[in-house]
Amino acid sequence: MARTASLSGFPEWLPEERLVELHVLDTLRKVFELHGFASIETRAVETVGQLLRKGEIDKEVYGLSRLQDDDADSSEAGKAGKADPHALALHFDLTVPFARYVVENAGYLAFPFRRYQIQKVWRGERPQEGRAREFTQADIDVVGDGELPFRYDVEIALVIAEALSALPIPDFRLRINNRKLAEGFYRGIGLDDTAGVLRSIDKLEKIGAAKVAELLKSELGASDDQAQAALNLAGIRTEDTSFVAQVRALGVTNDLLEEGLNELEQVIEAAVQRAPGKVVADLSIARGLDYYTGTVVETVLVGHEQLGSICSGGRYDALASKGNRKFPGVGLSIGVTRLVSRILSQDLAKASRSVPTAVLVTLTTDESWGAAQDVASQLRSRGIATEVAAKAEKFGKQIKFADRRGIPFVWFTDDDGKHQVKDIRSGEQADADPATWMPPSEDLKVQVTTALEAAAAQPA
Amino acid sequence: MARTASLSGFPEWLPEERLVELHVLDTLRKVFELHGFASIETRAVETVGQLLRKGEIDKEVYGLSRLQDDDADSSEAGKAGKADPHALALHFDLTVPFARYVVENAGYLAFPFRRYQIQKVWRGERPQEGRAREFTQADIDVVGDGELPFRYDVEIALVIAEALSALPIPDFRLRINNRKLAEGFYRGIGLDDTAGVLRSIDKLEKIGAAKVAELLKSELGASDDQAQAALNLAGIRTEDTSFVAQVRALGVTNDLLEEGLNELEQVIEAAVQRAPGKVVADLSIARGLDYYTGTVVETVLVGHEQLGSICSGGRYDALASKGNRKFPGVGLSIGVTRLVSRILSQDLAKASRSVPTAVLVTLTTDESWGAAQDVASQLRSRGIATEVAAKAEKFGKQIKFADRRGIPFVWFTDDDGKHQVKDIRSGEQADADPATWMPPSEDLKVQVTTALEAAAAQPA
Repeated sequence: MARTASLSGFPEWLPEERLVELHVLDTLRKVFELHGFASIETRAVETVGQLLRKGEIDKEVYGLSRLQDDDADSSEAGKAGKADPHALALHFDLTVPFARYVVENAGYLAFPFRRYQIQKVWRGERPQEGRAREFTQADIDVVGDGELPFRYDVEIALVIAEALSALPIPDFRLRINNRKLAEGFYRGIGLDDTAGVLRSIDKLEKIGAAKVAELLKSELGASDDQAQAALNLAGIRTEDTSFVAQVRALGVTNDLLEEGLNELEQVIEAAVQRAPGKVVADLSIARGLDYYTGTVVETVLVGHEQLGSICSGGRYDALASKGNRKFPGVGLSIGVTRLVSRILSQDLAKASRSVPTAVLVTLTTDESWGAAQDVASQLRSRGIATEVAAKAEKFGKQIKFADRRGIPFVWFTDDDGKHQVKDIRSGEQADADPATWMPPSEDLKVQVTTALEAAAAQPA
Repeated sequence: MARTASLSGFPEWLPEERLVELHVLDTLRKVFELHGFASIETRAVETVGQLLRKGEIDKEVYGLSRLQDDDADSSEAGKAGKADPHALALHFDLTVPFARYVVENAGYLAFPFRRYQIQKVWRGERPQEGRAREFTQADIDVVGDGELPFRYDVEIALVIAEALSALPIPDFRLRINNRKLAEGFYRGIGLDDTAGVLRSIDKLEKIGAAKVAELLKSELGASDDQAQAALNLAGIRTEDTSFVAQVRALGVTNDLLEEGLNELEQVIEAAVQRAPGKVVADLSIARGLDYYTGTVVETVLVGHEQLGSICSGGRYDALASKGNRKFPGVGLSIGVTRLVSRILSQDLAKASRSVPTAVLVTLTTDESWGAAQDVASQLRSRGIATEVAAKAEKFGKQIKFADRRGIPFVWFTDDDGKHQVKDIRSGEQADADPATWMPPSEDLKVQVTTALEAAAAQPA
């Protein structure tokens, strides 16, 4: 990350940086699949009508149009504009396209349908630290047909905690709240514009309690007591289920509040047991989007709180529907590019080398290229990534080439067919048989290690 | 593929179809990495000026614009239009973005730089069989700094033959020609407008020899003899190096022709030995794009020739440059979506199940969910993808759920803590220890098998 992107907001990685990103993506995929989530991808393109169905974010959407649109009849490729709901645009998240996919393919899916989806999304926002215009998200969701047991809310949180724990990142906290809890509480104190209260509470970290109280009073007509009660609720944060008693101590009674308390208690109870230290009940979490109806989650990297949430989501009971048929879901979305950018910019982890190659097979003569390819094939058959030199240059030059590319081993075959392999880091050289030789296991594949792991591996 | 895409030209796969695509992508990645190619990705977005640098294809490009562009100063997000080279657009291939990436990052790369790149690209063309508007390409290229040994042309062809051989697809043929050979020959017979001749020869399969001869005469002023000689050259197709003698027998002498003959001979000679039956010298191959300067390749699936080329590319000596510094390259691009669409539409291969999950852990009571998660964790720690039921429904219902999702094994734990596992395909049920049990190796991960393999595995 010494370089800046040549197009602001569109980051690109060098090969050794991409290896870190690949490691993150492979790790997420592995954890998701171990938990039975199936991969899908949706097209990058949706109709404007589909994207803006939930309103309010049209500023961020990139519309598409063919540069030389000379077909009068190509209606779907017409001028992208707010006015034309059939125009095409790039998706800005993976939830809206997923909802469309579920509705379109409902007849072919087995519900509850569990999927992961790792793709790029685009938002035309002003780029800033942690906010790109093109970035990768990794989502998991479970979607039911008609109903979806609450247990999936618990499961999704645990799967994400396991996935994040497997990444080369600093410690993290899932901060979890419940919309029913908040909404029930606000109603219980006589504030009925729940969305309005949530919007104000959402600003708590940015503008502070005093200003939020002002907003609640000036914009929603709350009394001093109501504003204070709302702030008291938002101030509750516990690592165990003691938040339940703290909320009850505020003396508000409401059925929806009880339902929310019970749900959040289940999540936190399971997390204390199965993901200790990774999850907190945080009653200040509001999440902007209107479609959440229960569990809501944000995630911070400890020590990197100003980066913003690296994983967010929750329960949405009515994101997708087809006639009378409803598809409730619960899901979380990891901001992969935000995470990888931070890992790279702060050297939190690195790849053990910059190429997949473990061995360079050298050439003694230009004619030995075929024989060298035979050696390489034998090595590759055991999973050892191998390149063959293109020209029979001096050995010193061929070794230098390997060194420059970060390849740890160089293979020599002399005129009598005797094989030797040299570790160019230590200089050690030994006889080797192309049919059996293996590099040390830590050199077989590229390893991605955190700064901490690297320090621990260092001899004192 | 029972369904049609809801947006013409933008295919999407069902989970079991996506597993076939993932298998193709994983296989390609594995082969590419074994040969030392490093992964990179470039942003989906380029400036219009960058994309149209090589001219002639502007009709196909999707321009971008922010739907609600109310920032006067956001110049890069201005109206996409032919006139504004700074406007943004989606890339239509991976070669042009890669050339830009190499120039921008030359100081950080070790040359010859080997990379693979697997990404979506977009073209606003009229959709048809084998031609989508959004599709995935898998490219490998080797790029040199100043010069690039010819040997890489040989290597690239062999790597691609190995990669395609590893895919669940019918037999294929790389059809290889050389621009120097063709250009030298045309000059040798007095036809100097090489690009013009190539354009006509490129139409050979579509319009036939007689019409190509007409074109050569009417558009390029060729004589009958010249047209006939050009067609004679294009008629040569050999599985070994005998094309050299056939070309010489046409009696044309030219230095560039000799260079091209020698180069193509090297490629075919190595292929006969190392990828027997997969490569032919085909002197009718022209490739439309102007930037090829030597080796050119197209690839057909045997029995699916009308699908068009599934892998194309070649040598380009001057695709990228930075001042006086030139970056010659050689590369090939696999049309992944074209291949996968064909595999799916003709049932050429299928996934052994539609979910990653191998085991469903059932619940006897709702309270046993935690204990069931413990069993699942033990199984997952050995790489067994496992789900836990969400509700303690009747066992019959839980088994039906597994069956509907295509999960082969169901796990039971009775009140005494005794574990059993049932293969729901055979109905066999046996005691099992969560700390040691493994499914048969063919059931551990999803397998993708071709129709032929599946038939062979079937008991007689």
